[in-house]
Amino acid sequence: MRPTEAMFVLFESPSHPMHVATLTLFDPPPGTAPGAHAAEMVARLRAHTEVAELFRKLPSRPLHGYPWWRFEKHIDLGYHVRHTAVPGDGTMAELLSLVSQMHSMPLDPQHPMWEMHVIEGLTDGRTAVYTKFHLSLTDGASGMRLLHRALTVDPDLQDCPAPWSPSVAAPTLQPSLDPRGVLRSGLVTTRELTAAVPTLIRAGYHGLTEEHLTLPLQSPPTIFNAPTGRARKVAARSWHLKRLRRLAACTGAPLDVVVLTMCAGALRAYLLEQYALPDAPLTAMLPVPLDLGESPTIGPGGNRGIGAMVVSLATDENDPLTRLARIADSVAHTSGIVAALSRTQFQLVSVLTLSPIMLDPVRRVLDDIPPPFNVMISYTPGPARPRYWNGAHLDAVYPIPTLARGQALSITLTSRSGQLHVAVVGDRTAVPHLHRIIGHLDSALTDLDTAARTASP
Amino acid sequence: MRPTEAMFVLFESPSHPMHVATLTLFDPPPGTAPGAHAAEMVARLRAHTEVAELFRKLPSRPLHGYPWWRFEKHIDLGYHVRHTAVPGDGTMAELLSLVSQMHSMPLDPQHPMWEMHVIEGLTDGRTAVYTKFHLSLTDGASGMRLLHRALTVDPDLQDCPAPWSPSVAAPTLQPSLDPRGVLRSGLVTTRELTAAVPTLIRAGYHGLTEEHLTLPLQSPPTIFNAPTGRARKVAARSWHLKRLRRLAACTGAPLDVVVLTMCAGALRAYLLEQYALPDAPLTAMLPVPLDLGESPTIGPGGNRGIGAMVVSLATDENDPLTRLARIADSVAHTSGIVAALSRTQFQLVSVLTLSPIMLDPVRRVLDDIPPPFNVMISYTPGPARPRYWNGAHLDAVYPIPTLARGQALSITLTSRSGQLHVAVVGDRTAVPHLHRIIGHLDSALTDLDTAARTASP
Repeated sequence: MRPTEAMFVLFESPSHPMHVATLTLFDPPPGTAPGAHAAEMVARLRAHTEVAELFRKLPSRPLHGYPWWRFEKHIDLGYHVRHTAVPGDGTMAELLSLVSQMHSMPLDPQHPMWEMHVIEGLTDGRTAVYTKFHLSLTDGASGMRLLHRALTVDPDLQDCPAPWSPSVAAPTLQPSLDPRGVLRSGLVTTRELTAAVPTLIRAGYHGLTEEHLTLPLQSPPTIFNAPTGRARKVAARSWHLKRLRRLAACTGAPLDVVVLTMCAGALRAYLLEQYALPDAPLTAMLPVPLDLGESPTIGPGGNRGIGAMVVSLATDENDPLTRLARIADSVAHTSGIVAALSRTQFQLVSVLTLSPIMLDPVRRVLDDIPPPFNVMISYTPGPARPRYWNGAHLDAVYPIPTLARGQALSITLTSRSGQLHVAVVGDRTAVPHLHRIIGHLDSALTDLDTAARTASP
Repeated sequence: MRPTEAMFVLFESPSHPMHVATLTLFDPPPGTAPGAHAAEMVARLRAHTEVAELFRKLPSRPLHGYPWWRFEKHIDLGYHVRHTAVPGDGTMAELLSLVSQMHSMPLDPQHPMWEMHVIEGLTDGRTAVYTKFHLSLTDGASGMRLLHRALTVDPDLQDCPAPWSPSVAAPTLQPSLDPRGVLRSGLVTTRELTAAVPTLIRAGYHGLTEEHLTLPLQSPPTIFNAPTGRARKVAARSWHLKRLRRLAACTGAPLDVVVLTMCAGALRAYLLEQYALPDAPLTAMLPVPLDLGESPTIGPGGNRGIGAMVVSLATDENDPLTRLARIADSVAHTSGIVAALSRTQFQLVSVLTLSPIMLDPVRRVLDDIPPPFNVMISYTPGPARPRYWNGAHLDAVYPIPTLARGQALSITLTSRSGQLHVAVVGDRTAVPHLHRIIGHLDSALTDLDTAARTASP
C-alpha cells in the first residue's frame, strides 16, 4: 500500500470517516414503473459478479502496524449493492435527508470499502443512486469518472456494465480535480509538504504577496471554519445552464465567474441571516488542474497533478454587478499570476494552500494558522450529450465530498445536458439551516438577472 | 465515567462497534393510515424536547486519554429521531434487511450515542421502530425496559412520554439479564476477572466438573465460534405461545425447555445443511439472574448482579422427544448445582463462563481457550397485557444484541401478549444464509408437535 493510501486508512476515526460519494438520479426507461425500476437496477447490478481489483481491495492491518492491501476473492454484492427507499412524501428534501444520514456513516473496514445504494420512492419517479468510496480507493472526481464510464450515449443499449466490471474499472485511475487527488496521485507526501514552507520563502513567496495574489492567510474567520464532526447535511438543486449562459453573455464575464458570483451572493445572504458575515470578503479555494492551458488528457504514466487557487468572493459588496466585477477581477488576477508561475512554484503555492486540508490526518500540526480559505467551491463542466444506463437516462449528478477538519462547508457544481447541478455539503452542527443556502443561490441568481437587465436595457 | 463504561468507549473500533438495539412493531391506531402514522410518530417524538441526563451523555476524550462524560445541553432531535422507509414490496424480509444494515453502522461518538428510527412502508401496515443504544449508556435488557416504560396499558391514552423524557429515564438503571449487564453493573472489573481463575480452582471448581455441570471447555468448535466483523444479518419471526404451552403441558417439560429444544432442533438442522454439525452436542449460554429464587426487584444501591449458566443442546440427537428430555435433564442438573452453589461460587463460575465475552475489549488475552459456549440464547418473558403508545398497539419486540468477537450467533426470545418473538442475529460472513434458521425453528416446532402427539395419543 502506498503511503498516500495508507494515510486515509490509518487516520480514519469513528468521528472522521474518510469517504466521498456521488448522488446520481436516473429517469426510468419508458414503460418501466419507478418502483420496479429500482428493484430491476439492483438485480442487474448484482448480476455483475466479475469485480475489478480496485473494488476487491481490502486494507489489512496488523495491530498498530502499517496497513497493506489484500484482495478479496469473492465479493458479496448483496452487501455492497443495497436497495433503499425514501420515506414520507418522497420529496427531494426527504431524499437529501436520507443521503445526509448515509454520508455520515463510516464504511466497514472489513469489506472492500465501497457501497452503492439504489433508492426508490421519489414522487417525481426518478431512481436515485448513492455511491460511496473510501478515499484510500479513489478520490471524488476519479470515482465520478469511474461511474460515468459505465454509462453509454445510446438510449437503447442494454447490457451496460457495472462500474466495478473489469472492463470499466481500469487498474490505474488518473489523478483528478479533487484536492485530495493531490495526495492520492502521489504528487506530494507529508515530508514534501512540511519541506514546502522554507522552499516557498526561497521561491519569492513574499514577492507574490505584494502582487495582490489572494493568499491563504488573508481569509477572515467564519462559522464555516469551525471544528467538524461526522454528521452531515446535504442540500442540492439544479438550474438551467442557459440562464447562466445568458448572464455571462450579457455581462461579458466567463461562465465560471457567473457561477462563483451566484455562490458568493448566496453565502453573503446566508451569513447575514445568521448574523455572521465578516467585514472582510470571504475566500474560496478552487481546485484547478496544475498544467493550465495544457491538454486535459494525458497518457498513462503522465503526472498531470492538481493545484489550488484562492479567489476573493467579494461578500462585503452588496451590489451584485459590482460583486461580479470584483470576483472576475480576482479570478483574472490570480489566474494571471498562476500562469506566470513556474510549474514548481504553482505546486508549492497549491501545497501551502491545501496543506491544512491534506495534513488533516496529521492533526494539530498547523492548528494555529488562520483558515487557509473559507469554503471550497469546485466546478467541473461535464459532457453535453445525455448518458444512459440500460435505457435509464442519467438526469443529475451531485458529487458529495468529504469535509476536512475545520472546513465545514463545501459547494460542488457540475454541469451536463444543459443543467447546472449544485450540491452543498456541510457539517450538521457547524452550519445550521444549511438547506437555506439553496434558496439563497436561487435568489442570488435572480438578483444578478435583475441587475444585469437594469444595467443593459 | 466509570471504568465499566469507559471500556465500551475506549475499545470501540470501526470494525467492532459496541451497541445494542431493539426492533419494535406497532399497529397504527384505528383510523390512522400507516404512512401517516410513521410521520405522526416522528413529529410526536421530536416534540419531546426535554431530555433526561442519560440521553444527553457524551463521551469526551482527550487525545489518547481517559474518557469522561459531558452533558449536551441542546439535543438535536432531528438528528436522533429519524424517518426511514422499507424499500421494495414492504415485506418483513425487506425490513429485516434494512435493520441488518442499520445494526452494522457504528453510532457517532460526537453526539449522545443513541438513535431512534421510525420505519414506514411495511405492507402489513405496521410501523417499525429501531432503537439503538451504545453499551456505555445501557445494556440491551435495561434499554428495552426503558422503552417499555414510555408505554401504557391504556389504548386511549394520548400524551405518552418519549423514552428520553426525564419522567421515564430515571437516573439509575437496574442491572439486567444481558451478560454485558454484569460489566455495566460494576459487579466485576477486569482485575477481578483475571483474578477469578485461581480463586475458582481453590473454590473446588474441579469438584464441580465431576458432578457433570456443563462447563465452558466442553463446547465443540463450530462455525458460530468464528472471528466476527461489523456487518450483521438479522432474522426474526413470532409464534403463538399457546402452541408451546400445549407442548409443555403434553411433555411435562417447563416452557423454557420447550423453547430451548425448538432452538436446538433449528441449529441442528441448519448445521446439517451446512455440513458443519459437530459430533459433540452444542452448548448454549443462558444469562440468568444471580440471586436465583430471590425477589427480582431490589432497591437502589442493591447489587443484584447477573450470572450465566451453560446447558447442553443435545444437537447430536435426532429424535425430538429424546432431545427435549436430554435438554430438560441438562437444565435441571445445571440449575440444581447452581442452586447449591454459594452466591460467590456462582459468580465465579459465571465470570469464567462469560470472561471471553466480557474481556473481548481486552483482546487477545484468552485467545487460546476453546469456545466457552457455542451460542447465546436469552429468553425473557414479558408482560401479558398489551401495551400502547399514543393509541398505537405494541405488536412485537425483538431485541438485537451486540455480537462479541468470536461469538457469531445469538438468539433472543421474548414473550408478550400470547406471542413468542424470536430474533436471530449473526455475523454476515461467518453465518451464511442466516434467515434459514427461522424456517428451521418452525420445522423444529412442528417436529416436536408431531412427536409429542404420536407419543401421547
